[in-house]
Parts: sequence; structure tokens; C-alpha cells
Amino acid sequence: MPKTNLQVLLASRPTGWASESNFRIAETPIPAVGDGQVLVKSHYLSLDPYMRGRMNDSRSYAAKVEIGQVMGGEAVGEVVQSKNPQFKPGDTVLNRAGWQQYGLSDGSDLRKVDPKAVPISTYLGVVGMPGVTAWMGLHDIGQPKPGETVVVSAASGAVGSVVGQLAKARGCRVVGVAGGREKCDFVTKEFGFDACVDHRAGDLVKALAAAAPKGIDIYFENVGGSLLDAVLALCNPFARIPLCGMISQYNAGDDRYGVKNLMAAVGMRIKLQGFIVSDHMERWPEALKELSDGVRSGKIKYRETVTQGLENAPRAFIGLLKGENFGKQLVKVA
Amino acid sequence: MPKTNLQVLLASRPTGWASESNFRIAETPIPAVGDGQVLVKSHYLSLDPYMRGRMNDSRSYAAKVEIGQVMGGEAVGEVVQSKNPQFKPGDTVLNRAGWQQYGLSDGSDLRKVDPKAVPISTYLGVVGMPGVTAWMGLHDIGQPKPGETVVVSAASGAVGSVVGQLAKARGCRVVGVAGGREKCDFVTKEFGFDACVDHRAGDLVKALAAAAPKGIDIYFENVGGSLLDAVLALCNPFARIPLCGMISQYNAGDDRYGVKNLMAAVGMRIKLQGFIVSDHMERWPEALKELSDGVRSGKIKYRETVTQGLENAPRAFIGLLKGENFGKQLVKVA
Repeated sequence: MPKTNLQVLLASRPTGWASESNFRIAETPIPAVGDGQVLVKSHYLSLDPYMRGRMNDSRSYAAKVEIGQVMGGEAVGEVVQSKNPQFKPGDTVLNRAGWQQYGLSDGSDLRKVDPKAVPISTYLGVVGMPGVTAWMGLHDIGQPKPGETVVVSAASGAVGSVVGQLAKARGCRVVGVAGGREKCDFVTKEFGFDACVDHRAGDLVKALAAAAPKGIDIYFENVGGSLLDAVLALCNPFARIPLCGMISQYNAGDDRYGVKNLMAAVGMRIKLQGFIVSDHMERWPEALKELSDGVRSGKIKYRETVTQGLENAPRAFIGLLKGENFGKQLVKVA
Repeated sequence: MPKTNLQVLLASRPTGWASESNFRIAETPIPAVGDGQVLVKSHYLSLDPYMRGRMNDSRSYAAKVEIGQVMGGEAVGEVVQSKNPQFKPGDTVLNRAGWQQYGLSDGSDLRKVDPKAVPISTYLGVVGMPGVTAWMGLHDIGQPKPGETVVVSAASGAVGSVVGQLAKARGCRVVGVAGGREKCDFVTKEFGFDACVDHRAGDLVKALAAAAPKGIDIYFENVGGSLLDAVLALCNPFARIPLCGMISQYNAGDDRYGVKNLMAAVGMRIKLQGFIVSDHMERWPEALKELSDGVRSGKIKYRETVTQGLENAPRAFIGLLKGENFGKQLVKVA
């Protein structure tokens, strides 16, 4: 076993766009394992849009990362040493070690997963937090009914791709929104959406109206900005908008987009509701069962972008914020 | 009985601010009463912000008024002729005759009210649609809990004044927002709010933060615009925002305000939900009972601005849109 632990630290807080200079690579000794502790070697690190919020010095639902701290996040890896009777070397576990090669844990944040059931990387994506996020936002806030029209932004992403497939399985017409022709083609051909609008190509309201001729009943919001305005103009009465994220605004600083069509929510009785997947842990088992069953049977498809090497995590993360990834963004740590 | 029926018609559709020139006064013969019909002479006409939306040629939850048609709206008056066995001359009824002196009805839109229980004008305000709107938005979407902080915009208005008093009765800290010192004083001294912020006086976020030191749990939205941004910046996790109206935006045309802080709804799991009081008629009896009991016991206070003469309805309506009224805006028709 190597002696050093590669880590990615937050070096400074971005104003506006995050850049690689906001991060710093460090090498520290691999920590000694004390009583009750477990050392986990990460195989895959998950990169998720919410991490951008943790870089800010502002109030949020989750603690910010302090300057000089290891960037937080979920990883899947292998127990390499254990002085905790619940875990033994070789166990595959999800952990919250963040952006580093080795994580030391008291076991409370670890969850054993079965590496034979599904590919271990999917525990960070479709069979993990992003998948459950899709499931929970769609079901608990969206409440889809057969025949309704569901629009999903960031449709080729880790969350959006699952939202659309689940909504299709519930008998909805599903319209994705994604950036570029290649992603849109994949969204319709591989993920099985009924249509996909390229938000880089021309008049968004017109394209959405054409793709959703009966209006929009559910809009799963991952993006924010002008897309939300376009959707609000097309919502049917009693539409539901689960607010999962607004990635277009995370790096906008004070230049955030101003949403002008919110008045439609009054007349159309639209519900917009933010949610965080960890608020309802009691919903996870049901969600995870459907998602892992779907992946195993091939009914639920997924796509991953895997960046090699922890030292490339900052670049991959900034790419994620710019929409350069395709599907779930992972870092292959070891 | 006079032979003519004074009416206010929609003469043209406003672009941006409505003006008196968008209306036209007409005199028509009083219609003959056919079998099953009822003729009602209006005493009070209700003027409500939602009427501005009916003047537009755009989709809404309610049918627009056509050019040359009588402006729609609710009135309270007296049956003067009836060929309908359910109504007799002298009955006091609520009707939907709109902006005219006499309304002919088949009875289906009439509701008998007791002129001795409460002043008949209150059936258009605190014991009518605006009161039920306050009750329903606060209860069904706001779901107030004792100790929570409730912010109410247009706090001196027909809806806002009731929201605040009901929220106080449920043990909440209640902060109003109103235009000008006189209204704010009335809101705290007469309606019993804990505090009232004058939105014309300086830094709104700072003033709101001072008045709501524990953050905002419920925001009853009547106004929209920059006030909504200020509130979003101060919302607690799981805050609820019943969207009742956005009067600051009704005359803005394409210059609508862009809401920049909607991203807070994700992290704070805020729910924003539009509603229309007529969607849930099954809730009215319970609401009306509490409201009329409150008015009779003096526990619920109200204030009215009464404009004399139907011909002055257009001016009064534009004043309402500008916030010149104080409490419920009525027109004394006869």
C-alpha cells in the first residue's frame, strides 16, 4: 500500500465561475486506523453540481467546505483496513470521504453495497443519490399521471435521464431539454424520451411548445434561467415543478437570471417546490429497489463520463458545470 | 324604478398601465324578466385586482372580458323582480352582475345572504371571496404553526389584513408589508400585526430582516416583484409561499420584474404555490363561518374604501391597482 493520500482541497472561493485555481492538490500521509475505524480506498468519486454551492461562503442546506479542507463528496471504494467489527477488508462501501484517495471513517457514513448486483459506479449514479433524487422529485412533488406531459431539463444528465425513464414507465409523454444535437439524439434513442429540445438551437418557447403540444404538467427543474421562463409560459393548470437544481445559475454570482413569468404560477396554480433527497431517507429503500431492478433488467439505461485520476477532478468538475459531461460524471480514483 | 341600466364596458385593452380610457360608460334598457329569471339591483360592487387580468387578451384561469362587454365582477344587492321561486323581491343576494346597476340572472349565480348578520358590504370582502382567499391560502398552502413567522404583503388590503389576523390567531409572529406610514400604523395598531414594513422606505431586505429576526416561514404573496426577492433571501428551510397575486406586475407588460433569488427555493426547500379560491368551493363554508363569527365578535377587523357612484368605478379600479385604496375597495352603486 502506498504511504501517501492524494487529496483535492478548496484553495479559494470562486466569485462567479469556478476555476481550477480554486482547488489545490495535496499529499498527506495515509491516516492510522484507530479503534472502531475503517480505512476505505476510493475507486470512484462522484462529481455533482451541488458541490458548487459548498464552495461558497453562504448559507445553504449543507455545510460549506472551509478553505484548506478536502472537497466533500460521495465515493465508492473498498475497505483496506478495519478496526470496526461491522466492516472487513474487501468490503465494497459507499462513503463520504470526498475528493481524496483514502478516507478514514468511524463507520457511521459507510454503506455496504453488493459489487455483483450492479456495476459499483452506478451506486454513485442511477442506483444512488442522483437516481433517488430523480425518483423522489418526480414522485413526491411531480406526482405524474398517465397521459401527462413531463419536461426534464439536463435530460442527458445523471438525474434527468432517470426522471425521463421513470416518467415514461408511468405512461407520460416525456420531453427532454439538453445541450447539443448529440445529447438530444441519445436522450430520445437510448433513454427513450418522446422528444428532446436542444436549448442551443433557436427559439426555446417555440421548440418546447412544438414538443409539448398539450402543454406541460410537470417540469423537473435542474437548470433554471431562461428555460424556466419558457416552461412557465407553457404550463397547464395545476402543473408541478420539482426544483432540484439550477445549474445555469451556480456560477452567475450577482448576474443571476431574473425569472419574469412567475406570475403564471398564480393563474395556473402552479406549484414550485425545492427538495433535498436526504430530507426523506425513509423513501430511499423503495426508490433504490426500483432503480436497481431497472438497471439489472436493462429497463433503466444510464451513461457515465469517467475522468481518470483524482488530480483531474477539478477540471472534470468545471466541465460538469459547463455541461461538457454526458450522463453521470465520475472520477476513477484508483 | 328607473328605465335605464348604467353599465361600465371594456372599451379597449390596456398595454401596460390600465387607464380610464380603457372603459366606457353605457346606458341600456333594464332587461325584461323572463320565466325563471331574477333582476337584482346592485348596492355594492366589488373591485378586485384579478379584474386587471380579465382585461388582457391572454390565457388565464378565467375568461377574459370581450371588448364592448360589461366588466365582470361580484356585487351585493337586492332582488327587485323575480320569476324564480327561489328568490323574492327584497332578498339580499350576492351576484356576478359585474359593473352595472342591474343584473339579470337565472338564479344559478345568486347566493342569499343575511343583511342582519353582518354589514352587507362585508360579503364582498372579509366575509366573502377576499376573506376566503386569505383563509384558504394561509391554511391549505401556508399551514401555519404556532411560533412561526408569517410575512404578508399588501397587508392593509382586503386579503392581506385577514391573512395577518388569522395568522395571529394561530400563534404566529405576523409581519405586514404595506405602502406608507399611515397604512403601516393601521396594520399594527388596528389589525394587530406584530410589525409592518413600509416598502417605500429604504432597504427592504434590511427592514424585513429586522422585523423577522427568526427568518420567514410563510410569505403570503399578493405583490410580487422585488419584494419576493427580498423575502426569498430570508426564508427559513421548508418555507411556504402561497401565491395569491402579484399586483406590482399586472400593469408591467413586457417590463415585468425578474425574480433572481428563486435558487433559494432549492436549497431551502421552499414551496411556492399558486391558488384560486374558487377551485375549492368545499372549503368555503368552514372559512365563511370563522370569518363571519370573527366579524360579529369584533375579533376580526376590516376596513373599506367606498367610492360613490358606478361611473367612478374605473377611476377607483385604477387607484386600487396603484395601492391608493385602504382595505377593501368597493363601489356604492345605489
